[in-house]
Amino acid sequence: MTYDLLSGTRIIESSAFIAAPLGGLTLAQMGADVIRVDAIGGGIDYRRLPLMPEGRSIYWTSLNKNKRSIAIDLKRAEGRELVADLVTAPGDGGGILLSNIPAKWLDPAALAKMRPDLISCLIEGNPDGTTAVDYTVNCATGIPAITGDGSVDRPVNQALPAWDLACALQASTAIASALVRRKQTGQGAQMRLALADTAFSLLSHLGILTEAELLPDPRTAIGNDIYGAFGRDFGTADHQRLMVAAISLRQWQALVEACDMADAIAAIERTTAMDFKKETDRFEGRDLIAALVKQWCRSRTLAEIALAFDRAGVCWGRYATTREALANDPRLSASNPVFERVRTEGVGAHLSAGAAVRIVGDERAPVHPAAKLGADTDTVLAEVLGLSSSEIGRLHEKGIVAGPDAAEPS
Amino acid sequence: MTYDLLSGTRIIESSAFIAAPLGGLTLAQMGADVIRVDAIGGGIDYRRLPLMPEGRSIYWTSLNKNKRSIAIDLKRAEGRELVADLVTAPGDGGGILLSNIPAKWLDPAALAKMRPDLISCLIEGNPDGTTAVDYTVNCATGIPAITGDGSVDRPVNQALPAWDLACALQASTAIASALVRRKQTGQGAQMRLALADTAFSLLSHLGILTEAELLPDPRTAIGNDIYGAFGRDFGTADHQRLMVAAISLRQWQALVEACDMADAIAAIERTTAMDFKKETDRFEGRDLIAALVKQWCRSRTLAEIALAFDRAGVCWGRYATTREALANDPRLSASNPVFERVRTEGVGAHLSAGAAVRIVGDERAPVHPAAKLGADTDTVLAEVLGLSSSEIGRLHEKGIVAGPDAAEPS
Repeated sequence: MTYDLLSGTRIIESSAFIAAPLGGLTLAQMGADVIRVDAIGGGIDYRRLPLMPEGRSIYWTSLNKNKRSIAIDLKRAEGRELVADLVTAPGDGGGILLSNIPAKWLDPAALAKMRPDLISCLIEGNPDGTTAVDYTVNCATGIPAITGDGSVDRPVNQALPAWDLACALQASTAIASALVRRKQTGQGAQMRLALADTAFSLLSHLGILTEAELLPDPRTAIGNDIYGAFGRDFGTADHQRLMVAAISLRQWQALVEACDMADAIAAIERTTAMDFKKETDRFEGRDLIAALVKQWCRSRTLAEIALAFDRAGVCWGRYATTREALANDPRLSASNPVFERVRTEGVGAHLSAGAAVRIVGDERAPVHPAAKLGADTDTVLAEVLGLSSSEIGRLHEKGIVAGPDAAEPS
Repeated sequence: MTYDLLSGTRIIESSAFIAAPLGGLTLAQMGADVIRVDAIGGGIDYRRLPLMPEGRSIYWTSLNKNKRSIAIDLKRAEGRELVADLVTAPGDGGGILLSNIPAKWLDPAALAKMRPDLISCLIEGNPDGTTAVDYTVNCATGIPAITGDGSVDRPVNQALPAWDLACALQASTAIASALVRRKQTGQGAQMRLALADTAFSLLSHLGILTEAELLPDPRTAIGNDIYGAFGRDFGTADHQRLMVAAISLRQWQALVEACDMADAIAAIERTTAMDFKKETDRFEGRDLIAALVKQWCRSRTLAEIALAFDRAGVCWGRYATTREALANDPRLSASNPVFERVRTEGVGAHLSAGAAVRIVGDERAPVHPAAKLGADTDTVLAEVLGLSSSEIGRLHEKGIVAGPDAAEPS
């Protein structure tokens, strides 16, 4: 955990893939004790790509840092009861379940009978409980139809699993909000959150839905142009690429100044009767503006452009691969307090992010690298369920639980 | 507001664009009383595209539903003091500020002196406080370099402002979490959240950062293929397009069954020594698999495919524009409890989303369409600051505040 906003809160996470694990990670970084329950040998996502050459999943370890791990035989009734016990164990901060596994044996309604103040958040694909993943929801949103420049004869999926990310953070917001109410009234909350609802509701919040319903002309693919203002990517003389945004008037004026194009812009405005001080006219006349900026950028190196842009206060950024950003961007380094270097077992030393939010004056605890599967089996059973070491030993003997050596797949 | 998890909580939002307004909207949909403060005549985002023909912004009204609106002259000291008074007004649920406007006169540290339990979340572009927007952060993440199929000689921006969405929901999580601590200990929290930190930390959580740091081969643009498993888009005989995902073993087996390709797959597995029951081999051999699925899909209509896929339990989705989805997808209609039809002033009747999360057994209050600018000026001044009607009248006369008729731009 990295901050203490949710300290004293215990969340049982029974999950796989991105949305639920990232929701749990986010709450862990706010200070919750998040205990991820996995099958002995690991769940369906335990070996997902990318993998280290020796086999450990970078995917899994990245999404499951800052958590504790308990490995349980989920196929046997005794193991399943153990999970239910963990979820419903007494204590003010307990009684919280985050899951994306719609298992009958982990039914939130049944668990709420055992602990009426239970807070549960079950992440589903579709609101009717049927399966959907980021990619099969994304295709239905219309976003791939407006991504790219329209030059290829098929929709363009975003490489980022953006709906999974949003779903995770919507779930963490809902759980923290439910905790606020429970602290106030003692009331629990049985919540369901569909990935599809997350995506479609965000289309509504962004205005894309209402635009599609009420305006005659559908939104089209406009490449790297920013919708509704001026902004686009440009090449430099030394074959670098950058993104420029002139959304606010100040950003626009800075761009005009930096590219020394005030006269040319004034001439275009006279000819076209547009007023580029207006955002909508900048969008309308973006090709005319872009032609000037393109010309200016392609005869200068990135270093020359950076100097001129920063002096004038242009809002811009440089395109980089993730690896280039890691090598060159100070925001993506241990000099940024959000990041630190950690050592994850089976992965090695690497940069890792703690909570993205910074709390002025609050202590920031270090990132706890992803545990080995079952690393916390015994402590969790003792702490949360109050089991004695002989009871825990019996569970190991029967193969109901496993510790870090027995829990890992061979 | 649509649920009561945060009822009794009052948030003052001083914001523009997406991240802060969407953070406020999310908390409003959890039940908070979110009061958006705007300059008389509207802030920088009040006229953003898309616009209704009569001029009202679909963008602004979509992001600012479920909130109250107060219009204040923010250029004058008396107006600025009024905002500070709103933020620091007494009461258990008050003392919360969400902002992305780094104004000196709205300095969280100064406000915290007036109300020590203040919870503030200031959204910034970069962690050093300099400007950055979704597009100028996105270019630095490496995601545009792996979006698209690599056939165009430039990076591909995602059309979705995904980092803004994530930043909004990270902020709402942080504020709700800080509320949990304040309820427990009385302590406030002065939080800063940079859009860039949101993006880069998510790269870390997704494993993309560690992959770039530790693995020799960088991730490349693989078009609409799903990284790490099997999944891709396919065309149908009737010129529709669909997305198939075979991430889990069950999804894979369903696809093999639906496309009647068990023999062909077995033959490929023998020839190549791959085992498509393994996710990593499905990814490795994805072109071989895709060739079979492509052949199968392109000789069938969407209706035929849908029948076969659904019968077998394939995880798939149909590509649609947002408008097509609105016309055909029941998940995107008033029959889905997350959605309802509302009437927004200046926009008209349209489908709108409430909270994406559903709480079993809890009452769901209707969506409150975006208020006219300044619609709640008088009630907010009376309720929050306890001003008398003559005091409020004096503020109107001096032009320090404005109601819905005077506040709108001409």
